[in-house]
Amino acid sequence: MSEPAITPVDASTTSTTTTAAPAAAPVKKEKPEKAEKAKKFTLKTPKGTQDYNPEQMAIREELFDNIKTCFKRHGAVTIETPVFELKETLTGKYGEDSKLIYDLQDQGGEICSLRYDLTVPFARYVAMTRTRAIKRYHIARVYRRDNPVMTKGRFREFYQCDFDIAGEYDLMVPDAECVKLICEILDAVKITSYQIKLNHRRLLDAIFAICGVPEDNFRPICSAVDKLDKSPWSEVRKEMVEVKHLDPTVADKIQTFVALKGKPFELLEKIRSSGLCDSSKDAIAVLADLEVLFKYLRAMGVDDKVLFDLSLARGLDYYTGIIYEAVVQNESEVGSIAAGGRYDNLVGMYGSLQVPSVGFSIGIERIFSILEARAKKEGKAIKQNHTKVYVMQMDQKDLLEERLKICTSLWDAGINTEFMYKIKPNGSKQMETALKLQVPIIVLFGQDELEKNELTLKNTVENKQERIPRDQLVAKVQALMKELNL
Amino acid sequence: MSEPAITPVDASTTSTTTTAAPAAAPVKKEKPEKAEKAKKFTLKTPKGTQDYNPEQMAIREELFDNIKTCFKRHGAVTIETPVFELKETLTGKYGEDSKLIYDLQDQGGEICSLRYDLTVPFARYVAMTRTRAIKRYHIARVYRRDNPVMTKGRFREFYQCDFDIAGEYDLMVPDAECVKLICEILDAVKITSYQIKLNHRRLLDAIFAICGVPEDNFRPICSAVDKLDKSPWSEVRKEMVEVKHLDPTVADKIQTFVALKGKPFELLEKIRSSGLCDSSKDAIAVLADLEVLFKYLRAMGVDDKVLFDLSLARGLDYYTGIIYEAVVQNESEVGSIAAGGRYDNLVGMYGSLQVPSVGFSIGIERIFSILEARAKKEGKAIKQNHTKVYVMQMDQKDLLEERLKICTSLWDAGINTEFMYKIKPNGSKQMETALKLQVPIIVLFGQDELEKNELTLKNTVENKQERIPRDQLVAKVQALMKELNL
Repeated sequence: MSEPAITPVDASTTSTTTTAAPAAAPVKKEKPEKAEKAKKFTLKTPKGTQDYNPEQMAIREELFDNIKTCFKRHGAVTIETPVFELKETLTGKYGEDSKLIYDLQDQGGEICSLRYDLTVPFARYVAMTRTRAIKRYHIARVYRRDNPVMTKGRFREFYQCDFDIAGEYDLMVPDAECVKLICEILDAVKITSYQIKLNHRRLLDAIFAICGVPEDNFRPICSAVDKLDKSPWSEVRKEMVEVKHLDPTVADKIQTFVALKGKPFELLEKIRSSGLCDSSKDAIAVLADLEVLFKYLRAMGVDDKVLFDLSLARGLDYYTGIIYEAVVQNESEVGSIAAGGRYDNLVGMYGSLQVPSVGFSIGIERIFSILEARAKKEGKAIKQNHTKVYVMQMDQKDLLEERLKICTSLWDAGINTEFMYKIKPNGSKQMETALKLQVPIIVLFGQDELEKNELTLKNTVENKQERIPRDQLVAKVQALMKELNL
Repeated sequence: MSEPAITPVDASTTSTTTTAAPAAAPVKKEKPEKAEKAKKFTLKTPKGTQDYNPEQMAIREELFDNIKTCFKRHGAVTIETPVFELKETLTGKYGEDSKLIYDLQDQGGEICSLRYDLTVPFARYVAMTRTRAIKRYHIARVYRRDNPVMTKGRFREFYQCDFDIAGEYDLMVPDAECVKLICEILDAVKITSYQIKLNHRRLLDAIFAICGVPEDNFRPICSAVDKLDKSPWSEVRKEMVEVKHLDPTVADKIQTFVALKGKPFELLEKIRSSGLCDSSKDAIAVLADLEVLFKYLRAMGVDDKVLFDLSLARGLDYYTGIIYEAVVQNESEVGSIAAGGRYDNLVGMYGSLQVPSVGFSIGIERIFSILEARAKKEGKAIKQNHTKVYVMQMDQKDLLEERLKICTSLWDAGINTEFMYKIKPNGSKQMETALKLQVPIIVLFGQDELEKNELTLKNTVENKQERIPRDQLVAKVQALMKELNL
């Protein structure tokens, strides 16, 4: 192998600095200085990306499994799509944000871009396969050339976790299931004190019409309303009037509406009795639809988690029905943690088939941040491995083949087992490693055990141990695992 | 939403044409013709990529889970690295194949490329985090701008499934565990009749020296030897002599060696007693090392799976110790299904730290092809969902809220449950859907059940049913699931 022309930078200056290393003999070899002379090489991951070390992955995998369990509970299947799409597949779907799309270099052939979200590839998939009905989840990474703020968990490469129901179904039925499922997921990942803000895109449009907003100003005004969760009314009003040239009296009328929020049935009753929407057939129809939704949410016991909030607007243009956003409070103010809505026209953008859809995306990176912070706060060491048994020898001589035979009988019985990669390992070093790995069971032997064809089985959880005949090893370990609920 | 400028092509002309759709009302809306006038748009995935539909994903997820179980059994942790790396991280690692690397467009900032394999990012990770010991697995997609042969399962985007042990350990111990683990994985995924060819890079080099190959011709001659599994000796000899300018008598000497293959201890004994390697100290030393390996393989009961084969060379330059390749026969001739070896210098290419490593890659796409072909042959419908219970009503009137309440009690008990998204569904259509979903348990109710506050619990596996009090639903379903081993 030729000598590489690389000068390393110290790892502490790079974006990933921690990792978990199982116990092993220290590495002694250091490279000779001649590499130092070579050209500068920056040892790092690309801007806005990061590695996940085993500790982070342990938290992530548990989180993904938890969420998948919820998806499967509702009968969802999963699909996978390529990490890049033809550029034209993405074109015209993200509005202004299109500038954030990562393009692949034109190396001859097709022009491709990394996926920006999972919804557009899903719509492309449904259109292309002419799927008429599918309930699918998809957990995968997406790419945005945004300005990364790593400390706030904003990356250029990050996971999305989507659930969507595509198909022609009765009014509000899949919509209601989506809201219920968000609640189940947040409960499953132990996010407490959240609220699901809910509104309807067509109700907003009807309100804009009632207030006198010109129709071609609906979307711009809608996107101004969307800022109400971060900015006070005075600023939003200013944007409406000064930037979006809305008549100030119209803006003031809008305020009466967007200030309304409350429990689903209560606010519905309040709007109806106030007569505020009586002049709009559209508004009356949407309120009737919402009443149907609220009944279903009540039947599923989640109406009390929902806040009917006329100020919720959601940024994306493609929503056509209900929209919702789960907001977590208390937990160090992370804000929005799941969001979605109904989009009936997106699939139709790819072909002759129109498949109405509703779904949501879980803010998995934010949940991950919360869980990581919690783990840090609790100060508990996170178990990265799934090892149940550590096999060790007491005497520092070559008994490796004995250990391998013992390990093999455990492996072949499906039991997660490790041992030290040393021919003549030191007894206390092995014990140290076993404890560091947080292994619940240790199998050990010395000269005495070998002679009597026995083994010592150590239960590190309850700090007990017993001598067992060697040929009963697997049965004894299985019994102990059952006893310890492993 | 503005009218899209898209003319769809028929999905049957694209690379993915099948999908699975749960039962639902047919989609009636078709888009008006005006879309037809718009610019041509090709509805497809990029060349060499594909979608995976729910049926394919069900097979894949089971396969991944199976393999992960094996990795965890040996104490492996997992990491994740970005899908793209700085281009310079990949430069100089793949030799001629570098032309197959996908580059991202230079959009200002760093020059990046999609990862080509998982080994180089792993080495970069180990160097960057100054990890001195890690045993990790990584299942993820990699990218190669190769000429795709979709029918042969050769794609530009495909999964790799890697296991590596990095760290300074005693001779051949982690190496032996790798071979054992390959056997466990192939057994777990029910690949029968495989053989693990094994050789040692330094033994090959010693043989080349014995035969009189000039040292700077070692790697070219090695790569010629690598072709022996596909080409006859006459062709390989021709390449050595005509393309690589090797003395014909030297080539003939090489033949004596590379024709040697056999059971580990037997071939070892044969080489030793023949005196073929006696002139090379290196060869004698490597043979002693291999004897150690073979002893460990015997202790782990896998020496009979191994074929010591002096013609095995492996393409990649970076191997420095043992090399191996699992070959499957019988199963429609797929050839190599797992391969790897020891590479002690790769991590050192990124910094001052040298961390010796050994590992392997499972040919997951090939295994997937085998499993898919098997499923097709058996003609069994693959269950894509994990739904255990279907809740249905007998009378075609609005009892949706009743169904939602029943579903909710099951969901909240963690039971995977589905229902029909219709307000007044037809009884036989619901039954049809339940059977199509292959649901083992059906909960149903008509007027009679409602009046008596009861439900009917149907066990579709044993075709039995019983009436139960409504408030015992969860307990009864859980008991039935236990009985049916669900």
